[in-house]
Amino acid sequence: MNDQTSAPHRPTLFYCPGACSLASQIALEEAGVAHDLGFVNLNGDRTDYYRVNPTGRVPALLLDGELLTENIAILTWAARQSPDRALLPVEDLALARAYSFMAWCASTAHIARRQFRAPQRFTPDASAHPALQAAGREAFWAVLRQIDERIGAGDWVLGADFSVCDGYAMVFYDWGVRDEHPMESLRSYSRFAERMTQRPAVRKALETHRSPLVTR
Amino acid sequence: MNDQTSAPHRPTLFYCPGACSLASQIALEEAGVAHDLGFVNLNGDRTDYYRVNPTGRVPALLLDGELLTENIAILTWAARQSPDRALLPVEDLALARAYSFMAWCASTAHIARRQFRAPQRFTPDASAHPALQAAGREAFWAVLRQIDERIGAGDWVLGADFSVCDGYAMVFYDWGVRDEHPMESLRSYSRFAERMTQRPAVRKALETHRSPLVTR
Repeated sequence: MNDQTSAPHRPTLFYCPGACSLASQIALEEAGVAHDLGFVNLNGDRTDYYRVNPTGRVPALLLDGELLTENIAILTWAARQSPDRALLPVEDLALARAYSFMAWCASTAHIARRQFRAPQRFTPDASAHPALQAAGREAFWAVLRQIDERIGAGDWVLGADFSVCDGYAMVFYDWGVRDEHPMESLRSYSRFAERMTQRPAVRKALETHRSPLVTR
Repeated sequence: MNDQTSAPHRPTLFYCPGACSLASQIALEEAGVAHDLGFVNLNGDRTDYYRVNPTGRVPALLLDGELLTENIAILTWAARQSPDRALLPVEDLALARAYSFMAWCASTAHIARRQFRAPQRFTPDASAHPALQAAGREAFWAVLRQIDERIGAGDWVLGADFSVCDGYAMVFYDWGVRDEHPMESLRSYSRFAERMTQRPAVRKALETHRSPLVTR
């Protein structure tokens, strides 16, 4: 965690390279919200960070002394800072579809990867970890294929319009590459990832998160 | 699953007693959205339902031939059908706080209970199930205590104002009772549950979901 001198009202996003905080940084960058970054080493000493966030997790957005946690909340807040950029749909059903996707990301998609990556978050019993990891790897690959199908011939996760949902989808592409899933076989998702990487806001967040998509 | 004759544009909520679809039904009832109910037996034959929803999960809201899945999405849609009832905050940060809570419900809270209740959803390896269940039961009890602390001296999850978030919090109280956690020791949460049960909309949804809170 960096101690940075912040102008009042300038939010700080706490992140860790390789974590799902990538989605939140993409949302803030795409919304044009000026912010500071707070580095958190999820695999190292988090003593300082626990004082800010007792759960020790990222992402978390510090807003005037209040801590906003959970990607869906930060994506919602970021999108609403720049309504002219239309980072979330306005119409009721279209907006609900966006939340359906984000909720699926936060539960089904993220949890599948967590089984593979951090089985100790489910049980301290190490004898259960190989089974959790094997099933998690398989479930996460199914998640990646579902996103590929969902994108299909469309440009973005919600179809014609870019949204904060696309930043969430990018997290899992990045993880798929890190986990050495055969991402190139997912043609729609790979084309999507290429389009994403060309956006300056996304590229910046990928660099901050040391994504193999921009550092290889 | 029931086949019901629906007026056009009248949505159908697919639910199962004991499932988290309770949150969605509370939201629809509180919003005054006329709807049909589609019973799904999660422990029985779901052949018919798989034709409607390939994942076989609940809740799902059928809206003019489109299926909306995930509680957060259905809660969002329901709240927006009756803006005068203010079932979600309007101000940016307050709304983001609501989504932070809902996202935590969908991931941390629900997943902890799933470990206890359905360890087979994490791995088919039965030798890992006891460890998953034990850790899940403990993690879910921690979840219940966190909600109790969060409510504290307040009336509702978000403080002074009732919201669709309260329906989500009610799911876990119902589960805590079903799982025989010492819910009465959670004073704030128990007072909250009592207030909730007095609301006709909530009571109706609890009855549909055969909650021990109304059937005992």
